[in-house]
Order: sequence, then structure tokens, then C-alpha cells
Amino acid sequence: MKEINIAIVGYGVVGNGVAKILEEKKQLLQDKTGIFINLKKVFTRNWNKKFAYPLHEEKKAYSLDEILNDDNISIIVELTGGIDFPLELALKAIEKGKHIVTANKALLAEKGKQIFLKAEEKGIRIGFEASVAGGIPIIRALREGLVANQITKIYGILNGTTNYILTSMLNEGKEFEIALKEAQELGYAEADPTLDINGTDAAHKIAILASLAYGGFVDFSKVHIEGIENISLMDIELAKELGYILKLIAIAKSHDGEVEVRVHPTFLPSDNPLAKVDGVFNAVMVEGDAVGETMFYGKGAGSLPTASAVVSDIVDIAKSISNNIGREIEITSMNWKHKDLNLTKVKDFFTRYYVRFTVPDKTGILAKISSVFAKYNISIAAVLQKEKVINKIKEELPKGTVPLVILTHTASENNLQSAVKEIQDSGFVEGKSIIIRVEDEEN
Amino acid sequence: MKEINIAIVGYGVVGNGVAKILEEKKQLLQDKTGIFINLKKVFTRNWNKKFAYPLHEEKKAYSLDEILNDDNISIIVELTGGIDFPLELALKAIEKGKHIVTANKALLAEKGKQIFLKAEEKGIRIGFEASVAGGIPIIRALREGLVANQITKIYGILNGTTNYILTSMLNEGKEFEIALKEAQELGYAEADPTLDINGTDAAHKIAILASLAYGGFVDFSKVHIEGIENISLMDIELAKELGYILKLIAIAKSHDGEVEVRVHPTFLPSDNPLAKVDGVFNAVMVEGDAVGETMFYGKGAGSLPTASAVVSDIVDIAKSISNNIGREIEITSMNWKHKDLNLTKVKDFFTRYYVRFTVPDKTGILAKISSVFAKYNISIAAVLQKEKVINKIKEELPKGTVPLVILTHTASENNLQSAVKEIQDSGFVEGKSIIIRVEDEEN
Repeated sequence: MKEINIAIVGYGVVGNGVAKILEEKKQLLQDKTGIFINLKKVFTRNWNKKFAYPLHEEKKAYSLDEILNDDNISIIVELTGGIDFPLELALKAIEKGKHIVTANKALLAEKGKQIFLKAEEKGIRIGFEASVAGGIPIIRALREGLVANQITKIYGILNGTTNYILTSMLNEGKEFEIALKEAQELGYAEADPTLDINGTDAAHKIAILASLAYGGFVDFSKVHIEGIENISLMDIELAKELGYILKLIAIAKSHDGEVEVRVHPTFLPSDNPLAKVDGVFNAVMVEGDAVGETMFYGKGAGSLPTASAVVSDIVDIAKSISNNIGREIEITSMNWKHKDLNLTKVKDFFTRYYVRFTVPDKTGILAKISSVFAKYNISIAAVLQKEKVINKIKEELPKGTVPLVILTHTASENNLQSAVKEIQDSGFVEGKSIIIRVEDEEN
Repeated sequence: MKEINIAIVGYGVVGNGVAKILEEKKQLLQDKTGIFINLKKVFTRNWNKKFAYPLHEEKKAYSLDEILNDDNISIIVELTGGIDFPLELALKAIEKGKHIVTANKALLAEKGKQIFLKAEEKGIRIGFEASVAGGIPIIRALREGLVANQITKIYGILNGTTNYILTSMLNEGKEFEIALKEAQELGYAEADPTLDINGTDAAHKIAILASLAYGGFVDFSKVHIEGIENISLMDIELAKELGYILKLIAIAKSHDGEVEVRVHPTFLPSDNPLAKVDGVFNAVMVEGDAVGETMFYGKGAGSLPTASAVVSDIVDIAKSISNNIGREIEITSMNWKHKDLNLTKVKDFFTRYYVRFTVPDKTGILAKISSVFAKYNISIAAVLQKEKVINKIKEELPKGTVPLVILTHTASENNLQSAVKEIQDSGFVEGKSIIIRVEDEEN
């Protein structure tokens, strides 16, 4: 029986789950792999806390060096938070010839280049299945299962917190603030939910998927990110009447040598499989030129689902080590094209749009708006202007005004923004106009 | 650049797709893997046909021996039909030290034991991602991505033909025969659709998944299989009123050291993600003790989707070969527990049931039926007995009778069958009673 020693750094929710699986499923993993994966040491800053999965004293490390300097430890499982500390740890681990498994999407999305290039140089493997969509094996699917495909588009619900909130807003008619508060009470949103709500977390994940799919690093500072903090129930309700469901969607797609990477509230047709993904679940749609449309669905967070992904990486690397594979690195790296991805600028996006204007309740406005859209070469697909609007909506709007919703065909972001600005400046609409992108088969 | 030579045997729809991908995506595959995968030879019985992807003369083999005796060919892609010929081919290929990739579910489900045991003995890898659910990387997910899980249940829509037919019946109110005819016209059903319609194809696939998940071979002759040939529109419509959708579901689940492997028409709650999978799409739900519920969705058939899976296996094996991995066999085999699975007998199934009786339109019948159910310890969850039934349904039933539907809680199959038989024999119902299993969270 081959034996591989591993260590965990960071003993929080996921770390406890990983330890539990490794200890309680020794036999299952041995049966399946022929390898004994031994959890040798765990490091955390403070052992004086209560842990969901308490450890024997012999497994506790009181300094990182105990792990870094132990030549018998081949894999370090990095489960700390933030970026600076885990970056330093990763670089040291690579230097020491230790393979790394991490669930840290911020680290990989923002410092991936530094880590992967060094890892490649040293023949070190980085496992990061757990960094995107928790237990769903989407990294493996992109890297191996769909290897024969040019990926035309990846889009998905990659953040459970925001999906829970949007589901409550849609299905129960709750306002954003109330839905958020409930999510916090249920443990689906953190005390400080900023990175979830403002789209950063989903952006980290789509940046990783884009790198894998398109084979180059993403300059994360250039990813277009919008969160759900300003979403109003009114737009959710109005779009529902047009057959669209609001989701926070992360998108990566390629065209003309560029890759669009963006996260924003997005209307999906209600028959899109992602439109039916409710609550804290994640789902990723991957479109490949050979395979067509595939979807991967499951829990995107939580102790055991995330640990399930971490352990799959540990097993994968343990197998490589015990088979003496040094250079099977190419395909695990995000950098198979060996050049950074060329990201599309926001103004060059082409997509469909939902635009809500607040207009005085009198004749002629639609004609004026339509003529500006026509001038900017934007084709209108649907208009929703209702004689009577439900009371709830009416209350939100200035007296004597109604919402006018325009759904466009695929248009240039630049033109759309210019048209809306011109309409806004012209004075025949009131307040701020709302623009939400629409993703469907047309674009 | 490492070079791996492969050969295809059988040049039909999938074979043409594989050749197309290998030829047209040489560069992509090299970029991603660092290996040049060279399609050296293709064998088919008759080269005098038109092919979707015609080949240069130098790639055409006119005898199998040209391939089997070529020491430079490391991988044989078996894409013939039937069982006897591919079995013989596989055994010869293993003997010659050639790795095998196959999309043949019948072969693996019925002769897998013979092939895998011999392959294991000789250090040969068998890739079979394409044998289940076309392009969806479900084999890899079970083998690697979810390796840390005890799989509690796998269930899914594994046959696109029957799902297309059931979707037309449900959404368009078409009778079975008409829906089948249309599926044939659209190329979604074969001229002889027997193995799809009667559930055998789905059963082959779930037998393979059960082997992988539970680590032992399945005696295919003991798999319980029912098809959709006798499904009536009436049951689809009645169950819809109770919130259930009919699908042909393949199920594998384990309990008490046994594994239940079965395929039959099944009612799913309409909010189950599988209930929303329409048309020719496939989807597999996998429940693991760590990961929870995950779903994999995509096209289950077709030239390029299936070829996408075949090529993923070719790449995987090419990487192993070029890394000199001989013994990374354990995890690719279906036999990691090294014992055959102990299959649950039909009479020992525990599940929920939909039972439709045809009863005279008079009082007291429900009381009689209920008392028989109670006697057999079967708890009733819902009853649907309508004063008025739609004309369409009325026409199908004998004059003066109405349908009475009973939905049970989880019950023993043995008891359920006995209860229905007793009711049937008692003479207070007419015609044949319909029993359809129901799959939901309770069971």
C-alpha cells in the first residue's frame, strides 16, 4: 500500500470537513485508489477553539514550518482566507516541492499567474476543484471531460448567497434588504456579505473558469463586475411578465480572439435551465462546439460539499505522485495557450438589454424613445407599457409616472448606453433609467 | 512532442465525429496536453459508402489485423455495434497490449466483467465515458470528482428517445404511437426503437454507473427493466394534477449491502430538476454523502457530443501512456470492491406508488380499496377521484366507470403488488389496474 502524507493549513468550516472525510473514509479511498492518504498535520493559528471535527493532539501543528520542513508531507491543503498569507504560503510550498490543493478563488483569480507559473517551473501541481462551485466537479469537466471542445460560452450561477436572495425576491416578493437579512439569519450570507453581494466572489470564479477554458491568465482588475445591491423588486416583477427571470450570472465567452468576462444581474428566459436553479444551489452551463449545451448543478458551498472537491484533488495528486508523474502539468495549468487573455472592453459587449424608463403617463413618449433607439441602430424586441401598474410599483415611482420597459435585440453596449444617455438628457423621462442585460440564445 | 497513434474500428456516426475532432483539433489538443494524437488507421467493413467525414486512402484499413498487428498503435477506439464482435475485438486488443476506448454500453453492461478482469490482469485501460449520457462527463465525475463520496443514489434520464416521446405526450397531449412516429421522422428514434422504448438501453447505462459507484459488477440479467410502451396519456394527465411528471428513470441505490438497479416509467415531483429535462436531453442526478445532490445535464447522443466523450478518453489514456503509467487501473475499473454487486430483488423494493384503478361510478369503493391497503400496511398519501373526468379520459374507460388514483407513501413492492392483486381479484374494480413507481425525497 502506497502512503501519501498531507497537511491542512487553515482549520475552518472546510478544513474540518476535509479532515472528517479523510479520517472517516480511509477505507473507501483506499479501495478506490489503492493509496493510503494520511492526514499528518493540521495548522491553525488558534487551537483553543471548539471544532466541528476535533483532532488528536499529534495531528496539531503549532507552526507552519513544522509542515513546510517535513519532507514526508507531499501535499499542502491551503484553506486559509484572504490573499496575502495564502500567496506567501503557496510560494513557499512550491519552493519546498510540495503540491497544493486550495479552495481559495480570490487567491487564484488575483494571483493565479504568479502561482501557476512558478508551479509549472518547479513541476508542482495545483488542485483547485473546490475553488469554483463547491462540490460540482466543473474544473475536471472543463479540463478533461470536455477537452475536445472549443468552449464557446460558460455562464452560470456561481454564488449561492445572491441566488438565495434573488430567489426570495422572485418567489416571495421580498425586498432586497429583507431577503438579505433572512439569508444571514439562515447562515446563507456572511455577517459581511459584501464580496458576495457586489459580485466579486462570482467574478473570481468565472475568471478561473475563463482561464481554464481559454488557456490564458485573466487580468482580474479588468473583469466587469456588477452586484445585486441595487436590484429592485419592480424590475424582477416586470421582467417576469415578459417571461424572464433575474439571476446574478457570471459569463465568459470568446469571439474574434477576445474573451468577454463579466458578472452582472442578468435576465434569462424562464425556460433556460439556469432560470430554474433556486436557493443556494449553483449551476454552470458550458457550451462546447462538439458537446453542445451541458449543465453542472449542485451545492456551491458548505463544509462537506467543498471538502468533497478538495479531497478529489488530493486523490488526483496522490495518484500522480504514486505514479511518479512529474510533468502532467500542462493540462492542470490555466495557461495552456501561454499568453494572457485579451479581455473585451465593456463598451464592446454585444448583448440584449432590458431598459426601464420612468415616464410621464401621457402620449408620445414611446415614439420619442423609439426614434432615439433607431438612431443608434438598436432594434426593439418587446415593449411593456401598462395602463395600470400594481400598487406596489406605483408607490415606488414619482406621482403621475409609469414604468416603460424596452427589451432590445442584440445591440452594442456602447450604442445602448449612448441611446439611454440621450433619452435621459432629453428630459422626457424622469429619474434614473435602469439597464439590465439579457442573456439568451440570440446573443 | 510525444506522439500517440490510435485506430478506430467501426466508422459510423460516432466514428466520423471522432475522426473529425481528431483531425480538425490537432492543435487544440496539442496545446492542452502536449501530445500529438495521430489517427493512424480506421477499419470498417465497407469503404464503398458515403461518409460524413471522408478519409484519405492511407488511413483506411481493410482488415482488423492491420490494426491489431501494428505495434505503433496504442489505443483502439471500438465503435462497432452489437456485442459478440466488439467483445472478440476487445479481448484481442487487450491480448495485444492495446488500450481501448468504447461507447458500447451493451458490451460493457453485459460483458464488462470479462473485459475489465482481463484488462486489469494485463494492465490495459478501458475508457468508456461515451457509453453513458453521451458528452456529459458523468463517468469521470463518479470516478474522480466525487471520489470522496459514498454514493447514496444515482438516478436519471439516460435515454433521449424515450424522453423525447414522453415530453411530446406530456406537453402536447400526443398519444404514444404518434409521438414515437414523429421521433422517428425527426431522427430521434431509430427505425427499430425496441431497445430504447423497452428500457434496455437505459438499463445498460445505469448498470455501468452502478458498477462504478458501488465497485462491483452487475449481473445484467437481474436488472429490473420496464419500458414506456404501455404508458397511456391518461396516467400522464392524472398525475400532472397531483404535481407529478412522468419520466423513464434509471435508478441505482444502495442499502443494507445490496444495490437496487432498475429502469421503469417513474413519476417525479414537478419541482425535481429532472422533471424539467425535456426532449432528447439526458440528465443524471448523483447524491453523495458529502456533496449532497448534484446534477449533470446535456446531450446524451449524437455524433459530436458522443465523439467529445470518446476523445476525452483518448486524451486521458494518451496522457497515461506518455507518462508511463501502467497501474493506474484500479480507479478506472468497475471492480474496486472486488466482488459482484448483490442486487435487490424486485419484491424487496421500497418506494412510493401511483396506482390507478378503474372503478364503477358509485359509492363505497374507496372504502373497500383503502381497507385492503391498510391490511397490507400501505399508507395512502393522496387520492384523486373526480366527479367529472375529461372526455378524452372517459372515452378510454368502460362505460359507467371512472379512474381512481391512489398515491402511496413508501411501501414494500411485495405488499403493494399483493394489495393490488387482492383488490383486482375481489371484483370491485374493472379492467387492469395500473402501477407506476414514484421517486421523491421520501424514498
